[in-house]
Amino acid sequence: MTSDERARLTDLLDAVRPLHARAMADAEQRQAQLTKPAGALGVLEPVSVRLAGIQGSCPPRALVSPAVAVFAADHGVHAQGVTPWPQEVTAAMVENFRAGGAAVNVLARQAGAEVYVVDVGVAGEVEPDERVWVRKVRAGTADLSLGPAMSTGEALATLLAGADVARELVERGHDCLLTGDMGIANTTASAALVAAFTGAAVAEVTGRGTGVDDATWRRKVDVVEGALTALDDRLATGAAAAPLEVLAAVGGLEHAALAGFVLGAAAARVPVVLDGMIAGAAALVAHALAPTVADHWFAGHRSVEPGHAVTLAHLGLRPLVDLDLRLGEGTGAVLALPVVQAAGAVLREMATFDSAGVARK
Amino acid sequence: MTSDERARLTDLLDAVRPLHARAMADAEQRQAQLTKPAGALGVLEPVSVRLAGIQGSCPPRALVSPAVAVFAADHGVHAQGVTPWPQEVTAAMVENFRAGGAAVNVLARQAGAEVYVVDVGVAGEVEPDERVWVRKVRAGTADLSLGPAMSTGEALATLLAGADVARELVERGHDCLLTGDMGIANTTASAALVAAFTGAAVAEVTGRGTGVDDATWRRKVDVVEGALTALDDRLATGAAAAPLEVLAAVGGLEHAALAGFVLGAAAARVPVVLDGMIAGAAALVAHALAPTVADHWFAGHRSVEPGHAVTLAHLGLRPLVDLDLRLGEGTGAVLALPVVQAAGAVLREMATFDSAGVARK
Repeated sequence: MTSDERARLTDLLDAVRPLHARAMADAEQRQAQLTKPAGALGVLEPVSVRLAGIQGSCPPRALVSPAVAVFAADHGVHAQGVTPWPQEVTAAMVENFRAGGAAVNVLARQAGAEVYVVDVGVAGEVEPDERVWVRKVRAGTADLSLGPAMSTGEALATLLAGADVARELVERGHDCLLTGDMGIANTTASAALVAAFTGAAVAEVTGRGTGVDDATWRRKVDVVEGALTALDDRLATGAAAAPLEVLAAVGGLEHAALAGFVLGAAAARVPVVLDGMIAGAAALVAHALAPTVADHWFAGHRSVEPGHAVTLAHLGLRPLVDLDLRLGEGTGAVLALPVVQAAGAVLREMATFDSAGVARK
Repeated sequence: MTSDERARLTDLLDAVRPLHARAMADAEQRQAQLTKPAGALGVLEPVSVRLAGIQGSCPPRALVSPAVAVFAADHGVHAQGVTPWPQEVTAAMVENFRAGGAAVNVLARQAGAEVYVVDVGVAGEVEPDERVWVRKVRAGTADLSLGPAMSTGEALATLLAGADVARELVERGHDCLLTGDMGIANTTASAALVAAFTGAAVAEVTGRGTGVDDATWRRKVDVVEGALTALDDRLATGAAAAPLEVLAAVGGLEHAALAGFVLGAAAARVPVVLDGMIAGAAALVAHALAPTVADHWFAGHRSVEPGHAVTLAHLGLRPLVDLDLRLGEGTGAVLALPVVQAAGAVLREMATFDSAGVARK
């Protein structure tokens, strides 16, 4: 970890500011004038207020160019048999994303969002192109059950790479960033991060991922419990006080990049829509580094993975979509995007009681 | 009620066919080949299968021209003080819809759906135009607490008018129909229909509507209980065996039209996205007339109104969106539309394991 990297992290965290109070107050006042009973648009109302606060603008500007960044990486813990899927599927899915045939591509086309893939740790070679970026610090993590998954220096460098991706996408004109992920075995690392940051029991936050049997599930739990015990022995403080160390010990490279990505978006005052369990685990790292960052996010959906509800509660986020998804890739974030866009449109376009000549009760 | 109208109802109910079994089997088989773990897209998967079954096509055709029909009508029971809003708001909101400033207009523009308004019983005069249709059998119901809200002949004629609207919208090329409604006091009539058809207690299914205080809520419950007791005394059979009589006794003209609308769409094999409490109450009438019709519908959302969850359980429908809305107008249906469209796109556009060269577990 270089002193330059440490300085960049400090700058990144300093750039995450509180929401814009005046824009939020204006948004609340405007909601009360629109032609509907107070509160009748439910969750759309606080979403619209938060959007105004993130952008510092009331009404919020339309989100006309959303982008989902799918961070892909491999996991050394795959060797412990925590998933039935071969590791090569990560690289094969990167090619599926490139070709436009994966679920996230289909849903993003429906929602008008562009898909970028960022290799931050795929084990094999990935050919870069306009939409597939290679930003890898290392080609897959070490096995977290045998020692730290990566060094804290690698974790920080990858986090900063994720923040760079956010900045570059914003510079390209993208005005809403959605998180995506791909990495065979990444629900194991996610469960470890969720248990470490929320204090929940490992068995409570470990799920079936992409579909594992009882024996494999038990192995996941054992692996995570072992890694967290070893981590506790090394850490002088609790997890929340040492987020980079926890990330390095039990996280994945996509978690590191995603943590930087959601910090970078907040620093740029661009709203983030989080996907599910993997995004949530990464968000816990970012939240431990800068608690106010969570105000800049929307929880796209609630995953079936049991650790995800625990994560959302810890972050104080209510999911916008709840459809039993457990795929990742960014699918839950992309499905929620129209809800966020609709909430903003309400503040921009709805008539007021006065303008429409509608009597109030 | 003319014999011609009775014959038209019989034809309408006969035209509601079971879902297309072969298209559904094909859709299920195709879901299993897509590049994702089985079941990982959650509710999107059964939605895609149902879409195939409704259209009789696998993959389902894209829903490129959705339309929401907002049925507007007034309610004689308004005189009982069941709502703090003046009755004139119904007609004023019709003008707000015409001008494009209401919530449903804003959300429909976001979702790419067209909005039609159908006056099936507004108390005042409504000027017809290309998007505001006047199809009224009577100008508002009678007070359901003093006697039947309308005659069974008026109920049937209005139901058939709603079915005509569905047919005409399909003839215009609309390939997905969404329900909307506007009518001050219509949650009172809705609670009565829900209690009658589901057997739930009136106090359980009566809500705060657009925002009523305790005394007004108690009045709503008393009014509905009184009307249902009077109805029970008149009916020789249970509610399910006499849906038109129940509709006429305690329903609204928009309920009658909506019941015909959702039957008409099913007869045309066009998917329906239901809005909330008012649509659900009307759907119960249609379901009592032809139980298989519910297979052709999607529940857009779950309203805060307590009777709505009871209704959805009775119809066997799971809501796609759950965001504490309680506005009506079709807002919950329009918000759910992207989910239905996305589910269909998955079957049309996703790569298979074989086509993408991705290994299976």
